[in-house]
Amino acid sequence: MSDMTSTADAPRSPGRPRSVRADEAIIEATLDLLAEGSTIEALSIEAIAARAGVGKATIYRRWSGKDALLMDALRRLKGVPPQPAGHSVRDDLVLLVGAVGHNVDPRAARIMPCLVPEVNRSPDHFQLYQNIIEPRRKLMREVLRRGVDSGELRADLDIELAMALLSGPMLIQRVLRWHPELDERILPERVVDSVLEGLRAR
Amino acid sequence: MSDMTSTADAPRSPGRPRSVRADEAIIEATLDLLAEGSTIEALSIEAIAARAGVGKATIYRRWSGKDALLMDALRRLKGVPPQPAGHSVRDDLVLLVGAVGHNVDPRAARIMPCLVPEVNRSPDHFQLYQNIIEPRRKLMREVLRRGVDSGELRADLDIELAMALLSGPMLIQRVLRWHPELDERILPERVVDSVLEGLRAR
Repeated sequence: MSDMTSTADAPRSPGRPRSVRADEAIIEATLDLLAEGSTIEALSIEAIAARAGVGKATIYRRWSGKDALLMDALRRLKGVPPQPAGHSVRDDLVLLVGAVGHNVDPRAARIMPCLVPEVNRSPDHFQLYQNIIEPRRKLMREVLRRGVDSGELRADLDIELAMALLSGPMLIQRVLRWHPELDERILPERVVDSVLEGLRAR
Repeated sequence: MSDMTSTADAPRSPGRPRSVRADEAIIEATLDLLAEGSTIEALSIEAIAARAGVGKATIYRRWSGKDALLMDALRRLKGVPPQPAGHSVRDDLVLLVGAVGHNVDPRAARIMPCLVPEVNRSPDHFQLYQNIIEPRRKLMREVLRRGVDSGELRADLDIELAMALLSGPMLIQRVLRWHPELDERILPERVVDSVLEGLRAR
Protein backbone atom coordinates (compact mmCIF):
# COMPACT_ATOMS: atom_id res chain seq x y z
CA MET A 1 0.00 0.00 0.00
CA SER A 2 1.42 3.40 -1.00
CA ASP A 3 0.92 6.20 1.44
CA MET A 4 -1.66 8.88 0.76
CA THR A 5 0.74 11.83 0.54
CA SER A 6 2.82 10.54 -2.35
CA THR A 7 -0.32 9.46 -4.22
CA ALA A 8 -1.77 12.93 -4.02
CA ASP A 9 1.28 14.27 -5.83
CA ALA A 10 0.74 12.23 -9.02
CA PRO A 11 -2.98 11.97 -9.65
CA ARG A 12 -2.75 10.86 -13.30
CA SER A 13 -0.41 7.93 -12.84
CA PRO A 14 -2.31 4.74 -13.80
CA GLY A 15 -2.73 2.03 -11.20
CA ARG A 16 -1.96 4.34 -8.30
CA PRO A 17 -4.33 4.35 -5.35
CA ARG A 18 -6.11 7.56 -6.39
CA SER A 19 -7.07 6.14 -9.78
CA VAL A 20 -8.05 2.85 -8.17
CA ARG A 21 -10.34 4.79 -5.86
CA ALA A 22 -11.77 6.70 -8.84
CA ASP A 23 -12.32 3.46 -10.81
CA GLU A 24 -14.06 1.97 -7.83
CA ALA A 25 -16.27 5.04 -7.38
CA ILE A 26 -17.19 4.98 -11.09
CA ILE A 27 -18.15 1.28 -11.03
CA GLU A 28 -20.11 1.79 -7.81
CA ALA A 29 -21.93 4.81 -9.25
CA THR A 30 -22.88 2.80 -12.36
CA LEU A 31 -24.26 -0.07 -10.29
CA ASP A 32 -26.09 2.30 -7.92
CA LEU A 33 -27.81 4.09 -10.81
CA LEU A 34 -28.86 0.78 -12.39
CA ALA A 35 -30.09 -0.58 -9.03
CA GLU A 36 -32.17 2.58 -8.57
CA GLY A 37 -33.99 1.80 -11.79
CA SER A 38 -32.04 3.59 -14.51
CA THR A 39 -32.31 1.79 -17.83
CA ILE A 40 -29.11 1.07 -19.77
CA GLU A 41 -30.38 3.45 -22.42
CA ALA A 42 -31.00 6.31 -19.96
CA LEU A 43 -27.67 5.77 -18.19
CA SER A 44 -25.24 8.50 -19.24
CA ILE A 45 -21.54 9.08 -18.68
CA GLU A 46 -22.57 12.51 -17.32
CA ALA A 47 -24.84 10.97 -14.68
CA ILE A 48 -22.21 8.40 -13.70
CA ALA A 49 -19.50 11.08 -13.43
CA ALA A 50 -21.75 13.29 -11.29
CA ARG A 51 -22.66 10.39 -9.00
CA ALA A 52 -19.03 9.23 -8.67
CA GLY A 53 -17.79 12.77 -8.04
CA VAL A 54 -15.32 12.64 -10.96
CA GLY A 55 -15.03 14.43 -14.28
CA LYS A 56 -16.20 12.76 -17.51
CA ALA A 57 -12.55 12.77 -18.69
CA THR A 58 -11.60 10.50 -15.78
CA ILE A 59 -14.13 7.94 -17.05
CA TYR A 60 -12.97 8.20 -20.66
CA ARG A 61 -9.31 7.73 -19.60
CA ARG A 62 -10.23 4.30 -18.29
CA TRP A 63 -13.13 3.13 -20.49
CA SER A 64 -13.77 3.60 -24.21
CA GLY A 65 -17.43 4.36 -23.56
CA LYS A 66 -20.60 3.42 -21.74
CA ASP A 67 -20.73 -0.19 -22.96
CA ALA A 68 -17.18 -1.00 -21.84
CA LEU A 69 -17.89 0.51 -18.44
CA LEU A 70 -21.19 -1.35 -18.19
CA MET A 71 -19.47 -4.63 -18.95
CA ASP A 72 -16.96 -4.13 -16.13
CA ALA A 73 -19.71 -3.03 -13.76
CA LEU A 74 -21.97 -6.00 -14.54
CA ARG A 75 -19.04 -8.43 -14.27
CA ARG A 76 -18.41 -7.05 -10.82
CA LEU A 77 -21.89 -8.20 -9.75
CA LYS A 78 -21.07 -11.82 -10.54
CA GLY A 79 -17.60 -12.10 -9.02
CA VAL A 80 -15.02 -14.69 -10.11
CA PRO A 81 -16.37 -18.04 -11.46
CA PRO A 82 -15.36 -21.20 -9.55
CA GLN A 83 -12.71 -23.46 -11.10
CA PRO A 84 -13.67 -27.14 -11.61
CA ALA A 85 -11.26 -29.59 -9.96
CA GLY A 86 -11.29 -31.86 -13.03
CA HIS A 87 -11.74 -35.20 -11.24
CA SER A 88 -15.43 -36.11 -11.24
CA VAL A 89 -17.72 -34.76 -13.97
CA ARG A 90 -20.65 -34.96 -11.57
CA ASP A 91 -18.83 -32.98 -8.84
CA ASP A 92 -17.61 -30.37 -11.31
CA LEU A 93 -21.15 -29.92 -12.59
CA VAL A 94 -22.45 -29.50 -9.02
CA LEU A 95 -19.82 -26.77 -8.49
CA LEU A 96 -20.69 -24.93 -11.72
CA VAL A 97 -24.47 -25.30 -11.35
CA GLY A 98 -24.04 -23.83 -7.86
CA ALA A 99 -22.55 -20.70 -9.46
CA VAL A 100 -25.36 -20.24 -12.01
CA GLY A 101 -27.33 -17.11 -11.22
CA HIS A 102 -25.14 -16.48 -8.19
CA ASN A 103 -24.15 -12.87 -7.66
CA VAL A 104 -21.74 -11.56 -5.07
CA ASP A 105 -23.39 -8.14 -5.01
CA PRO A 106 -26.93 -7.73 -3.62
CA ARG A 107 -27.71 -4.98 -6.16
CA ALA A 108 -27.81 -7.77 -8.77
CA ALA A 109 -31.30 -8.79 -7.60
CA ARG A 110 -32.59 -5.42 -8.72
CA ILE A 111 -30.41 -4.97 -11.78
CA MET A 112 -30.30 -8.32 -13.55
CA PRO A 113 -33.97 -9.24 -14.15
CA CYS A 114 -34.88 -5.76 -15.45
CA LEU A 115 -31.84 -5.78 -17.70
CA VAL A 116 -33.20 -8.69 -19.69
CA PRO A 117 -36.04 -7.03 -21.61
CA GLU A 118 -33.70 -4.16 -22.33
CA VAL A 119 -30.76 -6.19 -23.66
CA ASN A 120 -33.24 -8.16 -25.79
CA ARG A 121 -34.30 -4.96 -27.53
CA SER A 122 -30.78 -4.04 -28.58
CA PRO A 123 -28.37 -6.34 -30.47
CA ASP A 124 -25.38 -4.43 -29.02
CA HIS A 125 -26.56 -4.86 -25.46
CA PHE A 126 -27.47 -8.47 -26.10
CA GLN A 127 -23.89 -9.04 -27.23
CA LEU A 128 -22.56 -7.26 -24.15
CA TYR A 129 -24.67 -9.53 -21.94
CA GLN A 130 -23.47 -12.62 -23.82
CA ASN A 131 -19.87 -11.46 -23.35
CA ILE A 132 -20.38 -11.44 -19.61
CA ILE A 133 -21.91 -14.90 -19.31
CA GLU A 134 -20.00 -16.68 -22.09
CA PRO A 135 -16.79 -17.31 -20.05
CA ARG A 136 -18.95 -19.00 -17.42
CA ARG A 137 -20.74 -21.10 -20.00
CA LYS A 138 -17.41 -22.18 -21.44
CA LEU A 139 -16.41 -23.80 -18.13
CA MET A 140 -19.59 -25.90 -18.05
CA ARG A 141 -19.31 -26.80 -21.72
CA GLU A 142 -15.77 -28.11 -21.12
CA VAL A 143 -16.86 -30.31 -18.23
CA LEU A 144 -19.73 -31.75 -20.33
CA ARG A 145 -17.36 -32.48 -23.24
CA ARG A 146 -14.98 -34.19 -20.84
CA GLY A 147 -17.90 -36.34 -19.64
CA VAL A 148 -18.77 -37.36 -23.21
CA ASP A 149 -15.11 -38.16 -23.97
CA SER A 150 -14.73 -40.25 -20.82
CA GLY A 151 -17.93 -42.17 -21.52
CA GLU A 152 -19.64 -40.91 -18.36
CA LEU A 153 -22.20 -38.99 -20.42
CA ARG A 154 -24.21 -40.12 -23.45
CA ALA A 155 -22.19 -40.06 -26.66
CA ASP A 156 -25.01 -38.23 -28.47
CA LEU A 157 -25.28 -35.49 -25.81
CA ASP A 158 -26.40 -32.09 -27.10
CA ILE A 159 -24.05 -29.88 -25.08
CA GLU A 160 -26.09 -26.67 -25.41
CA LEU A 161 -29.31 -28.40 -24.44
CA ALA A 162 -27.55 -30.07 -21.49
CA MET A 163 -26.35 -26.65 -20.32
CA ALA A 164 -29.93 -25.34 -20.42
CA LEU A 165 -31.20 -28.40 -18.50
CA LEU A 166 -28.60 -27.90 -15.78
CA SER A 167 -28.74 -24.09 -15.58
CA GLY A 168 -32.49 -23.53 -16.00
CA PRO A 169 -33.77 -24.88 -12.68
CA MET A 170 -31.06 -22.97 -10.76
CA LEU A 171 -31.63 -19.72 -12.62
CA ILE A 172 -35.40 -19.70 -12.19
CA GLN A 173 -34.99 -20.39 -8.50
CA ARG A 174 -32.36 -17.68 -7.98
CA VAL A 175 -33.48 -15.00 -10.43
CA LEU A 176 -37.23 -15.60 -10.51
CA ARG A 177 -37.54 -17.24 -7.05
CA TRP A 178 -39.62 -19.77 -8.88
CA HIS A 179 -40.68 -22.12 -6.14
CA PRO A 180 -40.75 -21.05 -2.49
CA GLU A 181 -40.20 -24.58 -1.21
CA LEU A 182 -37.10 -25.62 -3.13
CA ASP A 183 -34.02 -25.35 -0.92
CA GLU A 184 -31.44 -23.36 -2.86
CA ARG A 185 -28.49 -24.77 -0.90
CA ILE A 186 -29.00 -28.39 -1.91
CA LEU A 187 -30.52 -27.60 -5.29
CA PRO A 188 -27.27 -27.82 -7.36
CA GLU A 189 -26.61 -31.38 -6.20
CA ARG A 190 -30.22 -32.47 -6.67
CA VAL A 191 -30.49 -30.87 -10.11
CA VAL A 192 -27.27 -32.48 -11.36
CA ASP A 193 -28.11 -35.94 -10.03
CA SER A 194 -31.69 -35.84 -11.36
CA VAL A 195 -30.68 -34.56 -14.79
CA LEU A 196 -27.90 -37.16 -15.07
CA GLU A 197 -30.14 -40.07 -13.99
CA GLY A 198 -33.44 -39.03 -15.59
CA LEU A 199 -36.95 -39.17 -14.20
CA ARG A 200 -38.18 -42.27 -15.99
CA ALA A 201 -38.68 -45.46 -13.98
CA ARG A 202 -36.22 -48.23 -14.90
CA MET B 1 -74.95 -8.96 -29.50
CA SER B 2 -77.32 -6.34 -27.97
CA ASP B 3 -77.81 -3.22 -29.99
CA MET B 4 -76.09 -0.04 -28.88
CA THR B 5 -79.25 2.02 -28.27
CA SER B 6 -80.72 -0.22 -25.61
CA THR B 7 -77.32 -0.57 -23.88
CA ALA B 8 -77.00 3.20 -23.57
CA ASP B 9 -80.23 3.22 -21.62
CA ALA B 10 -78.91 1.00 -18.81
CA PRO B 11 -75.25 1.82 -18.23
CA ARG B 12 -74.93 0.17 -14.79
CA SER B 13 -76.28 -3.21 -15.75
CA PRO B 14 -73.47 -5.78 -15.23
CA GLY B 15 -72.31 -7.79 -18.22
CA ARG B 16 -73.78 -5.41 -20.76
CA PRO B 17 -71.59 -4.26 -23.63
CA ARG B 18 -70.81 -0.85 -22.12
CA SER B 19 -69.38 -2.36 -18.92
CA VAL B 20 -67.50 -4.99 -20.92
CA ARG B 21 -65.93 -2.21 -22.94
CA ALA B 22 -65.02 -0.35 -19.73
CA ASP B 23 -63.51 -3.51 -18.16
CA GLU B 24 -61.48 -4.07 -21.28
CA ALA B 25 -60.25 -0.47 -21.31
CA ILE B 26 -59.28 -0.70 -17.63
CA ILE B 27 -57.31 -3.94 -18.14
CA GLU B 28 -55.65 -2.50 -21.24
CA ALA B 29 -54.72 0.71 -19.40
CA THR B 30 -53.17 -1.31 -16.56
CA LEU B 31 -51.07 -3.40 -18.94
CA ASP B 32 -50.04 -0.34 -20.98
CA LEU B 33 -48.84 1.50 -17.86
CA LEU B 34 -46.86 -1.55 -16.69
CA ALA B 35 -45.36 -2.08 -20.16
CA GLU B 36 -44.28 1.55 -20.21
CA GLY B 37 -42.23 0.95 -17.08
CA SER B 38 -44.55 1.78 -14.19
CA THR B 39 -43.73 -0.28 -11.12
CA ILE B 40 -46.54 -2.11 -9.31
CA GLU B 41 -45.97 0.20 -6.37
CA ALA B 42 -46.22 3.38 -8.46
CA LEU B 43 -49.29 2.15 -10.34
CA SER B 44 -52.39 3.92 -9.00
CA ILE B 45 -56.12 3.50 -9.55
CA GLU B 46 -56.12 7.23 -10.45
CA ALA B 47 -53.57 6.72 -13.22
CA ILE B 48 -55.38 3.65 -14.56
CA ALA B 49 -58.74 5.47 -14.53
CA ALA B 50 -57.25 8.46 -16.36
CA ARG B 51 -55.61 6.23 -18.96
CA ALA B 52 -58.77 4.15 -19.49
CA GLY B 53 -60.98 7.24 -19.69
CA VAL B 54 -63.24 6.07 -16.86
CA GLY B 55 -63.94 7.27 -13.35
CA LYS B 56 -62.32 5.62 -10.31
CA ALA B 57 -65.80 4.46 -9.20
CA THR B 58 -66.11 2.40 -12.39
CA ILE B 59 -62.94 0.51 -11.42
CA TYR B 60 -64.05 -0.01 -7.82
CA ARG B 61 -67.43 -1.35 -8.96
CA ARG B 62 -65.61 -4.20 -10.68
CA TRP B 63 -62.44 -4.77 -8.59
CA SER B 64 -61.89 -4.59 -4.84
CA GLY B 65 -58.60 -2.77 -5.35
CA LYS B 66 -55.32 -2.53 -7.21
CA ASP B 67 -54.16 -6.07 -6.44
CA ALA B 68 -57.35 -7.71 -7.71
CA LEU B 69 -57.18 -5.64 -10.88
CA LEU B 70 -53.48 -6.45 -11.33
CA MET B 71 -54.17 -10.16 -11.01
CA ASP B 72 -56.81 -10.04 -13.77
CA ALA B 73 -54.52 -7.92 -15.95
CA LEU B 74 -51.50 -10.20 -15.51
CA ARG B 75 -53.63 -13.32 -16.11
CA ARG B 76 -54.69 -11.76 -19.39
CA LEU B 77 -51.05 -11.74 -20.54
CA LYS B 78 -50.82 -15.49 -20.22
CA GLY B 79 -54.08 -16.57 -21.84
CA VAL B 80 -55.80 -19.89 -21.12
CA PRO B 81 -53.55 -22.85 -20.13
CA PRO B 82 -53.64 -25.93 -22.42
CA GLN B 83 -55.52 -29.01 -21.20
CA PRO B 84 -53.56 -32.30 -21.12
CA ALA B 85 -55.20 -35.11 -23.10
CA GLY B 86 -54.49 -37.63 -20.33
CA HIS B 87 -53.14 -40.48 -22.47
CA SER B 88 -49.33 -40.30 -22.51
CA VAL B 89 -47.47 -38.69 -19.60
CA ARG B 90 -44.66 -37.77 -21.98
CA ASP B 91 -47.00 -36.08 -24.48
CA ASP B 92 -48.88 -34.22 -21.74
CA LEU B 93 -45.57 -32.95 -20.35
CA VAL B 94 -44.51 -31.76 -23.82
CA LEU B 95 -47.81 -29.85 -24.06
CA LEU B 96 -47.45 -28.23 -20.62
CA VAL B 97 -43.72 -27.48 -20.97
CA GLY B 98 -44.60 -25.77 -24.25
CA ALA B 99 -46.89 -23.41 -22.33
CA VAL B 100 -44.28 -22.49 -19.68
CA GLY B 101 -43.28 -18.86 -20.06
CA HIS B 102 -45.62 -18.52 -23.03
CA ASN B 103 -47.60 -15.30 -23.14
CA VAL B 104 -50.33 -14.41 -25.60
CA ASP B 105 -49.71 -10.67 -25.19
CA PRO B 106 -46.47 -9.12 -26.47
CA ARG B 107 -46.44 -6.60 -23.59
CA ALA B 108 -45.50 -9.54 -21.34
CA ALA B 109 -41.90 -9.38 -22.58
CA ARG B 110 -41.59 -5.94 -21.02
CA ILE B 111 -43.72 -6.51 -17.97
CA MET B 112 -42.86 -9.96 -16.63
CA PRO B 113 -39.07 -9.88 -16.09
CA CYS B 114 -39.14 -6.48 -14.35
CA LEU B 115 -42.00 -7.60 -12.17
CA VAL B 116 -39.85 -10.22 -10.50
CA PRO B 117 -37.55 -8.06 -8.36
CA GLU B 118 -40.61 -6.09 -7.31
CA VAL B 119 -42.82 -9.01 -6.30
CA ASN B 120 -39.85 -10.43 -4.39
CA ARG B 121 -39.70 -7.29 -2.25
CA SER B 122 -43.33 -7.56 -1.16
CA PRO B 123 -44.94 -10.66 0.39
CA ASP B 124 -48.38 -9.50 -0.86
CA HIS B 125 -47.20 -9.13 -4.42
CA PHE B 126 -45.30 -12.39 -4.23
CA GLN B 127 -48.55 -14.07 -3.23
CA LEU B 128 -50.38 -12.39 -6.10
CA TYR B 129 -47.76 -13.69 -8.54
CA GLN B 130 -48.01 -17.19 -7.07
CA ASN B 131 -51.81 -17.05 -7.43
CA ILE B 132 -51.38 -16.42 -11.14
CA ILE B 133 -48.97 -19.26 -11.84
CA GLU B 134 -50.25 -21.82 -9.34
CA PRO B 135 -53.20 -23.07 -11.49
CA ARG B 136 -50.69 -23.75 -14.27
CA ARG B 137 -48.33 -25.58 -11.93
CA LYS B 138 -51.21 -27.69 -10.69
CA LEU B 139 -51.77 -29.11 -14.19
CA MET B 140 -48.12 -30.23 -14.49
CA ARG B 141 -48.07 -31.60 -10.95
CA GLU B 142 -51.11 -33.77 -11.75
CA VAL B 143 -49.49 -35.22 -14.87
CA LEU B 144 -46.30 -36.02 -12.91
CA ARG B 145 -48.30 -37.72 -10.15
CA ARG B 146 -50.15 -39.74 -12.78
CA GLY B 147 -46.75 -40.83 -14.17
CA VAL B 148 -45.58 -41.99 -10.74
CA ASP B 149 -48.85 -43.86 -10.14
CA SER B 150 -48.70 -45.59 -13.51
CA GLY B 151 -45.05 -46.61 -13.01
CA GLU B 152 -43.83 -44.54 -15.96
CA LEU B 153 -41.88 -42.23 -13.64
CA ARG B 154 -39.58 -43.11 -10.73
CA ALA B 155 -41.47 -44.03 -7.58
CA ASP B 156 -39.24 -41.68 -5.53
CA LEU B 157 -39.81 -38.68 -7.82
CA ASP B 158 -39.68 -35.28 -6.12
CA ILE B 159 -42.59 -33.59 -7.90
CA GLU B 160 -41.54 -30.00 -7.13
CA LEU B 161 -37.97 -30.64 -8.27
CA ALA B 162 -39.24 -32.37 -11.42
CA MET B 163 -41.38 -29.30 -12.20
CA ALA B 164 -38.31 -27.06 -11.88
CA LEU B 165 -36.26 -29.39 -14.12
CA LEU B 166 -38.95 -29.32 -16.81
CA SER B 167 -39.91 -25.64 -16.53
CA GLY B 168 -36.46 -24.09 -15.98
CA PRO B 169 -34.91 -24.63 -19.44
CA MET B 170 -38.06 -23.33 -21.16
CA LEU B 171 -38.41 -20.31 -18.91
CA ILE B 172 -34.80 -19.17 -19.26
CA GLN B 173 -35.07 -19.51 -23.02
CA ARG B 174 -38.37 -17.61 -23.25
CA VAL B 175 -38.00 -15.03 -20.50
CA LEU B 176 -34.23 -14.57 -20.40
CA ARG B 177 -33.54 -15.60 -24.03
CA TRP B 178 -30.79 -17.66 -22.49
CA HIS B 179 -29.16 -19.29 -25.48
CA PRO B 180 -29.47 -17.81 -28.98
CA GLU B 181 -29.02 -21.18 -30.69
CA LEU B 182 -31.66 -23.26 -28.95
CA ASP B 183 -34.72 -23.61 -31.18
CA GLU B 184 -37.73 -22.67 -29.06
CA ARG B 185 -40.19 -24.60 -31.23
CA ILE B 186 -38.67 -28.03 -30.64
CA LEU B 187 -37.37 -27.25 -27.15
CA PRO B 188 -40.40 -28.61 -25.18
CA GLU B 189 -40.04 -32.04 -26.77
CA ARG B 190 -36.27 -32.13 -26.36
CA VAL B 191 -36.40 -30.94 -22.75
CA VAL B 192 -39.01 -33.53 -21.76
CA ASP B 193 -37.24 -36.43 -23.48
CA SER B 194 -33.81 -35.50 -22.08
CA VAL B 195 -35.09 -34.95 -18.54
CA LEU B 196 -37.00 -38.24 -18.64
CA GLU B 197 -34.07 -40.27 -20.02
CA GLY B 198 -31.17 -38.53 -18.24
CA LEU B 199 -27.77 -37.52 -19.58
CA ARG B 200 -25.70 -40.34 -18.18
CA ALA B 201 -24.35 -43.00 -20.53
CA ARG B 202 -25.96 -46.43 -19.99
